[in-house]
Amino acid sequence: VRLADLPTPALVVDHEGFRANVATMGDRWPGAALRPHVKAFKSTALAHQLAASGHTGFCCATIREVEGMAAAGLGADLLLANEVLDAGRLGALVRADAARVTVAVDSPETIAAAAAAGVREVLIDVNVGLPRCGCDPGDAGRLADEARAAGLTVRGVMGYEGHVVGLADRAARTDQTATAMALLGEAHAAVGGDVVSGGGTGTWDLNTWITELQAGSFTLLDTAYDELGLPFRPALCVLGTVISTNATAGYAVADVGLKSLGMDHGNPLVDGATVWFCSDEHTTFGPPRGTAYGDWPVRVGDRVAVWPAHIDPTIALHAQLSVIDGPIGPRTGATIDPTAEVVDTWPVDLRNW
Amino acid sequence: VRLADLPTPALVVDHEGFRANVATMGDRWPGAALRPHVKAFKSTALAHQLAASGHTGFCCATIREVEGMAAAGLGADLLLANEVLDAGRLGALVRADAARVTVAVDSPETIAAAAAAGVREVLIDVNVGLPRCGCDPGDAGRLADEARAAGLTVRGVMGYEGHVVGLADRAARTDQTATAMALLGEAHAAVGGDVVSGGGTGTWDLNTWITELQAGSFTLLDTAYDELGLPFRPALCVLGTVISTNATAGYAVADVGLKSLGMDHGNPLVDGATVWFCSDEHTTFGPPRGTAYGDWPVRVGDRVAVWPAHIDPTIALHAQLSVIDGPIGPRTGATIDPTAEVVDTWPVDLRNW
Repeated sequence: VRLADLPTPALVVDHEGFRANVATMGDRWPGAALRPHVKAFKSTALAHQLAASGHTGFCCATIREVEGMAAAGLGADLLLANEVLDAGRLGALVRADAARVTVAVDSPETIAAAAAAGVREVLIDVNVGLPRCGCDPGDAGRLADEARAAGLTVRGVMGYEGHVVGLADRAARTDQTATAMALLGEAHAAVGGDVVSGGGTGTWDLNTWITELQAGSFTLLDTAYDELGLPFRPALCVLGTVISTNATAGYAVADVGLKSLGMDHGNPLVDGATVWFCSDEHTTFGPPRGTAYGDWPVRVGDRVAVWPAHIDPTIALHAQLSVIDGPIGPRTGATIDPTAEVVDTWPVDLRNW
Repeated sequence: VRLADLPTPALVVDHEGFRANVATMGDRWPGAALRPHVKAFKSTALAHQLAASGHTGFCCATIREVEGMAAAGLGADLLLANEVLDAGRLGALVRADAARVTVAVDSPETIAAAAAAGVREVLIDVNVGLPRCGCDPGDAGRLADEARAAGLTVRGVMGYEGHVVGLADRAARTDQTATAMALLGEAHAAVGGDVVSGGGTGTWDLNTWITELQAGSFTLLDTAYDELGLPFRPALCVLGTVISTNATAGYAVADVGLKSLGMDHGNPLVDGATVWFCSDEHTTFGPPRGTAYGDWPVRVGDRVAVWPAHIDPTIALHAQLSVIDGPIGPRTGATIDPTAEVVDTWPVDLRNW
C-alpha cells in the first residue's frame, strides 16, 4: 500500500523521525530513567518499540491505558500518573499479577481508594505550580504517612511542571523548572522513597532534579512543541486529499478536519500553504503569503500532509497509525510523495476509558 | 447501572431532552423534509430513533458513515454531503443495492470519480458563502450538464450556509441566510431537479428556501448553539468524577479533558462553576464568581456534568452514549444526581473513516 492508496484522513508516522527522536531522548535518559508517557500515542505497537530501546517502564493517564499495556505484555512497571477513585480495575491487574501498577495519590480519598482496591504501590502527587492534581508540597509527608498506615508502599513523589513545558522562552523555562522542582524536592524530603518522577518533552534537558522523565510528545512531536526549537522532529501528520479548490477565492480544501485533529492548541500547519480554518471534516487552506493562487500547485486529488498542533488528542481520534520508513514529504510544499510505501500499521488500541 | 457506577469520563444522553428536540424539529420539518446529519452523533442507534419518527433520509459527512448507516438498515436515502475522490466504497453499496446513495459533487474530478465508481445520483454542491466545498453558483449548470453527460442523475443542489448558522444576532442570521439561499436558488434554476438541500440547526426556522434541512446538532445540542436561544435543549454531557480539589487555590479537578471533549469551540461549561482550563484528561474548575471556595459544595468523588461546546467532535472521541430517561441533573449546581439509572447504551459506531 502506498500513501496514494490510503483512505484519508489517515495518520502517517515517519519512522525514521520517530527512531531519531527516541535515540536523542535515550542518550540523555537511558533505560528506566525515561518513563515514556503512553497518553501521547495510545498505541502498544509504538510502546513495544520504546521497550525494545530499553525503556520498559511507562506512564499512563487512564485506567484503560494501564489495562491495555498490561495485556500487551508491557506491564513491567506502569505508573498511572493520575488520580482515580474507581481503582478496582487496577487492583484486579495487581491481584492477577498482570502488571506492576503504581498509582498517583493526592488526598485521603484517593489513598483509601487505592488501598481498598488492592493496589499496593503509590506515588504522592505534588502540585508544583500547575493548577491541577497534586497535593500542596507541605501536605506530602502527612499523606505519605497516611498511605503507609493504609498498607501501601510509597515509592516516592511525582510532580509535573505542565505550566512550564510549553514556555517559548528557554530562560523562563529553566528558571520556572527550578522553582517547580524545589517544591517537589521539599515534598520528596518529607515523603522519602526512590522515585522522583516529573518533567516533559519541553523540559527534557532542563529538569535535572528528577530520577525519571515522564515524556511522550518527543516521540512524534507536534507543531506546538516544534516551536520551542527542540532537537526532535515532527514525525506524525494527518494525510489528506484535496477534495475541492476554488480559484475565484483562491483556496483549496482537504478532507482533514476537527474530527481528525486535536484543536485545543489551534489550527494545524500545511507546508507551503496558509491554513484558513478547520471544520468537522475539512481544512481550508490557501497559498503562502506572497504567492498568487495561480502560481500555487495544489490540485484536486493531491495528497497533503496536515501537521497537528497537538498530537495527543489527534491520535485519540484515529484507529491506527500508518508507518512509512522515511520523512513525510520534503516539507517544501503542500503536497507529498504519494508513492511512499506504508511499511507497517500500528493500531491505536488504548483509546477510550 | 446508575450514573454513580459508570466509569468516567462517559457521554450521557438526556433522552427526554432528545425526544423533545426531535419533536420540535419534526413539527417544522416533518418526515423527509428533515434529513438529519449523522456527523453530529455518529450512532446508528440514535439514527434509528429519528427514522422511527419518520425521518428516514439521512445526511452523512464520511464514507464510513454511509457504510455504517447502510449496514444498519438505514440506507433508504443517504446523502454524502461531501466531496470524495475515492468513491469506490460508495459504488459498491449501490451495486449491492445496500443503500440509495447520493453524493455531492463540485468539480469535473468529483463527477468523474462518482461516475467511474458506479454511484448513480448526485447533487451539485454550491458555494453559498462559506469558504469550503461547493462550486461557484455560476458554474452549477455546466457541472450538472457534465454530470448528466457522464450518465449520472442530478437530483438537484445543496448549499450549506455554515458561515451563518452560528451568528449570534438573529437579524443578521436571517439576512445572510436570504443572501446565501439566493445564490443557491440561482444555481438550482440552472441545475434543475427536485432537491434543494441545506440549512442547519442555527437556521432551522429561518431558511425557507430549501426543500430539506440538513441539521444534526439540534438532537443533543451544545453550549455554542445554546447561546442562540433556540428551542432545543442541551441533552448531552460528559459525566466526570471530581478526582482532586485544592482548597488553597480554590479549585476542583474532574477527569474530563481534551481527550473526551471537542475543543474547537472552546472550553466546556460546568453548572454552578467557572471553568479554568482543560488538559488531556482534566478540567480544572472553581466556584462561580461571587462564591467563596469554602461555600462551594464540590468534593472529591462527586459526579459532575461537563457540557461540551461542540457535540460533533466530542462524540467522535467516545465509544458509546449512556442514556438516562430524564434531564441530566437540575443544572443548578455542579453536581448531578448519581442515582439516575442508565436505561440504554448507544454505540458510537460510525467513528473513523
